[in-house]
Amino acid sequence: MANKTARLLISCPDTRGIIAAVTGFVAQHNGNVLEADQHTDTQQGEFLMRLEIEIDGFNLSQENFDALWSPLAKQYDMRWKIHWSSAVKRMAILVTKESHCLSDLLWRWKSGELNVDIPFISSNHETLREQAQAAGLTFHHLPITPTNKTVQEGQLRTLMQEAHVDFIVLARYMQILSPDFVASYPERIINIHHSFLPAFAGPRPYHHAFERGVKIIGATSHYVTNDLDEGPIITQSTMPVDHRDTVEDLIRKGRDLEKVVLSAAVRLHDEDQILVCKNKTVVFD
Amino acid sequence: MANKTARLLISCPDTRGIIAAVTGFVAQHNGNVLEADQHTDTQQGEFLMRLEIEIDGFNLSQENFDALWSPLAKQYDMRWKIHWSSAVKRMAILVTKESHCLSDLLWRWKSGELNVDIPFISSNHETLREQAQAAGLTFHHLPITPTNKTVQEGQLRTLMQEAHVDFIVLARYMQILSPDFVASYPERIINIHHSFLPAFAGPRPYHHAFERGVKIIGATSHYVTNDLDEGPIITQSTMPVDHRDTVEDLIRKGRDLEKVVLSAAVRLHDEDQILVCKNKTVVFD
Amino acid sequence: MANKTARLLISCPDTRGIIAAVTGFVAQHNGNVLEADQHTDTQQGEFLMRLEIEIDGFNLSQENFDALWSPLAKQYDMRWKIHWSSAVKRMAILVTKESHCLSDLLWRWKSGELNVDIPFISSNHETLREQAQAAGLTFHHLPITPTNKTVQEGQLRTLMQEAHVDFIVLARYMQILSPDFVASYPERIINIHHSFLPAFAGPRPYHHAFERGVKIIGATSHYVTNDLDEGPIITQSTMPVDHRDTVEDLIRKGRDLEKVVLSAAVRLHDEDQILVCKNKTVVFD
Amino acid sequence: MANKTARLLISCPDTRGIIAAVTGFVAQHNGNVLEADQHTDTQQGEFLMRLEIEIDGFNLSQENFDALWSPLAKQYDMRWKIHWSSAVKRMAILVTKESHCLSDLLWRWKSGELNVDIPFISSNHETLREQAQAAGLTFHHLPITPTNKTVQEGQLRTLMQEAHVDFIVLARYMQILSPDFVASYPERIINIHHSFLPAFAGPRPYHHAFERGVKIIGATSHYVTNDLDEGPIITQSTMPVDHRDTVEDLIRKGRDLEKVVLSAAVRLHDEDQILVCKNKTVVFD
Repeated sequence: MANKTARLLISCPDTRGIIAAVTGFVAQHNGNVLEADQHTDTQQGEFLMRLEIEIDGFNLSQENFDALWSPLAKQYDMRWKIHWSSAVKRMAILVTKESHCLSDLLWRWKSGELNVDIPFISSNHETLREQAQAAGLTFHHLPITPTNKTVQEGQLRTLMQEAHVDFIVLARYMQILSPDFVASYPERIINIHHSFLPAFAGPRPYHHAFERGVKIIGATSHYVTNDLDEGPIITQSTMPVDHRDTVEDLIRKGRDLEKVVLSAAVRLHDEDQILVCKNKTVVFD
Repeated sequence: MANKTARLLISCPDTRGIIAAVTGFVAQHNGNVLEADQHTDTQQGEFLMRLEIEIDGFNLSQENFDALWSPLAKQYDMRWKIHWSSAVKRMAILVTKESHCLSDLLWRWKSGELNVDIPFISSNHETLREQAQAAGLTFHHLPITPTNKTVQEGQLRTLMQEAHVDFIVLARYMQILSPDFVASYPERIINIHHSFLPAFAGPRPYHHAFERGVKIIGATSHYVTNDLDEGPIITQSTMPVDHRDTVEDLIRKGRDLEKVVLSAAVRLHDEDQILVCKNKTVVFD
Repeated sequence: MANKTARLLISCPDTRGIIAAVTGFVAQHNGNVLEADQHTDTQQGEFLMRLEIEIDGFNLSQENFDALWSPLAKQYDMRWKIHWSSAVKRMAILVTKESHCLSDLLWRWKSGELNVDIPFISSNHETLREQAQAAGLTFHHLPITPTNKTVQEGQLRTLMQEAHVDFIVLARYMQILSPDFVASYPERIINIHHSFLPAFAGPRPYHHAFERGVKIIGATSHYVTNDLDEGPIITQSTMPVDHRDTVEDLIRKGRDLEKVVLSAAVRLHDEDQILVCKNKTVVFD
Repeated sequence: MANKTARLLISCPDTRGIIAAVTGFVAQHNGNVLEADQHTDTQQGEFLMRLEIEIDGFNLSQENFDALWSPLAKQYDMRWKIHWSSAVKRMAILVTKESHCLSDLLWRWKSGELNVDIPFISSNHETLREQAQAAGLTFHHLPITPTNKTVQEGQLRTLMQEAHVDFIVLARYMQILSPDFVASYPERIINIHHSFLPAFAGPRPYHHAFERGVKIIGATSHYVTNDLDEGPIITQSTMPVDHRDTVEDLIRKGRDLEKVVLSAAVRLHDEDQILVCKNKTVVFD
């Protein structure tokens, strides 16, 4: 289970022989491939690949991999990254007042299901301070008003940088991040939207679902981009509802979806199982 | 299983004592209530009820029920209808070229799963004539052009009237019916939309779903109103998809959803299990 | 949402006129029926009904209901109970070492989603003491050895009685309760089994599921009877798995099922939505 | 969509460098890998791989592939097969009296969704002859009695051999095939069982599910082995049921599961997406 591995993610223009070249490189350095997944997005002409390589026996390491790998990467015009499992990712969590997603993430973190460090939780309200601190975590309160938003977000960025945050989870954070902030964390901010996107984008999706009389509700996790609720979808889930369900029932039932959908996305991101191609995700699970 | 029953559907302003009054009336005439379902739409202040009464032993019949029931119905300001199971409903099917929903409905009809008469199938193309006729059914070809639409729809209405059609199923019928036509069959035209409405309303939903990169697709059956794809939703279903699915895969997988969702709605309608309240359905299943 | 209501549950031999008699009784005492559900188990010849009556305006109360209702109940040979919403149910939780179901229940309790009092949590291990106490709850440690089981269970029963416990939730409690204990809480002990019963009854269901190579796993909540894993099933849920899932993955994924399935059953029980008929449940949700 | 491809399936003891060796071989002969999937069953120490290679541009063909590939296959002790998409598989269907699975398969075949040839349909009853012949297919009636079973199965095997049948689908065939017959078609006979195996193995699963009061029913497709209902599971699906469902309802609802589960398995087999490892399937979908 807990093999020490390196995870190599690759995207490049599709052409013949890439898999052979990549796996040949790994074999040449005595690497054992534990998982190899690839996908070709024929519409974009893009080849995407994920390799999980056992570190035990592998002749390359964090010190010399990049230099030796670079020529091949250049030859195929690759965007790539490698994650060595010794490096635990650092995840910041932004919340507002609702606690269900936060509770769920913290349980998974405490139980070891989610292998991350959590340098801090930040919120525009005080509501969840107690919960964060009970888990032994740092809590920042950065209240947002119409006039202080830029300042507070600057403060948040400083906190992120100082804490060497790798990715950010919006666990029901009810504020829109500025384009600048979002651009600083491309494919590294994960949001949960409480509807089956693209249905009921925007605020109050359960109220809209109730008004429309749908028979199924859903939740959607996605990477945040500057098009609100339009970023690449990572995971979705749905459940049946019926005429007996009030708006409050939809909200209650939806919480169970939101928790599972968000934590699944966080896990996939943390384990380097997601590649983004244009505005879609390729999820190697 | 095949008890002879009368199904009584009621909507009226909500007030105290309706259930007692209605079930008291049935008991007074020695009726045995097999199923009783009720719902109050508190937002609309509307009470909705469905009773299934065993005909065996019931002192009322199709001949005298209406007269004896009317005073109570008036007292509570009810909209109501009763369906006696001896009367098999007459269902017309409109199709274009795609055969999967039609095939599915015909199999259920032939096997006895769906207890309807099918006076005819009508289409704007000849494609499915053979299939209809192989099932021993009448097939009408009413091609639609920009100039003949009114005439052809008039012809269709005549056919409907002559055949004493009770309700109409649009089994992937790729034409929009005129407001007049729709108004003649309120809550009696069932459509299948090949998306999880309200996502991807309008044409080519699978193409839009593919472009958006959703991880779940769906299908929706609904009553047709003059707001396109906005009528009361009857049933919905969803299934997971992933990055490996092409548009063609979505279309193929979606067919399995469409068949099941449409035939479920047809069955519910046929068995008088649906009440409409404003733009929503109450489904007593 | 938070109407004050009385919930009346009835089972009796099926005969004509019960609904009219019951709803007539309520109407006669000016009760407003908010929900009425009924079901006839034709195999057992048993009629089952649930009424939710608004207390506001109802001429009967906890003080005089029983006396006035009894004649009717006797006439129809009813087993019945009524729950007045002013009385919050008292729920004891038994756990061993695993915390996911307990965490989930406690979050729902703290957030107000689950309207119960929790007099104590008891365990055969110390593992979850901290979690219980952090939630402000009493924690009893009653370790079980082959020789002390009878004594410890006697102690547990005393605690239950002193705390006026209404029902018991086995939130992954890894001990078999004695027949005597079980008989004292008929239809009032809820267990979660970590498989889709009757598949993989008994211990280590995820290991057995892995060995068998199933493509779907499940979880089952049920009332405890003295036939192990054979009690009336309340709720079940399933999720897909595949060849990439190790036993550890099944265990991890299964936790998400277990939490939701158990808390759904607890909620249904707490809101008096379950009736038992022979070895099956009728769930009016 | 309809690329001409060769599909190469490999199983062998797990060791380093297999992917590099295999994809290197393909690249060396100018093959373009469209899909590459691999899995290691760590419990069995078995490496399993599926490659889909574009035929266009590939320097190898059905004529010379085997000779050139053999040395590599031997080196790694591979079991392997290759399927060239020019060869349409030949599928025989065995049925008894129930038509829903047959109808479903025939619709998919006629519509082009399922790319197979169907040399014949065989049954122990005459019931479905008309349906088979209406589809333009040969129908054999081989009635089974306690005394003629061996003879009739011999006759069936002759028919299979003469028709060069590649695989056999038991579309609700209510007879147990003899060990000899089964051994002749290893991993090439697909059955649909109308329960969520291993629950309710054996006959009348819906009746048993009804008796047990389960809240979910299922269906299972699997390869037939000589352990009844114990062969490697290919696909499963489930759906919710409740106390209102009679046995007849379970049977009716289950048909929708059975159709989809069986045809999914047939499609996966036809497209060479299934590898068997011990008694489990690895499904590369």
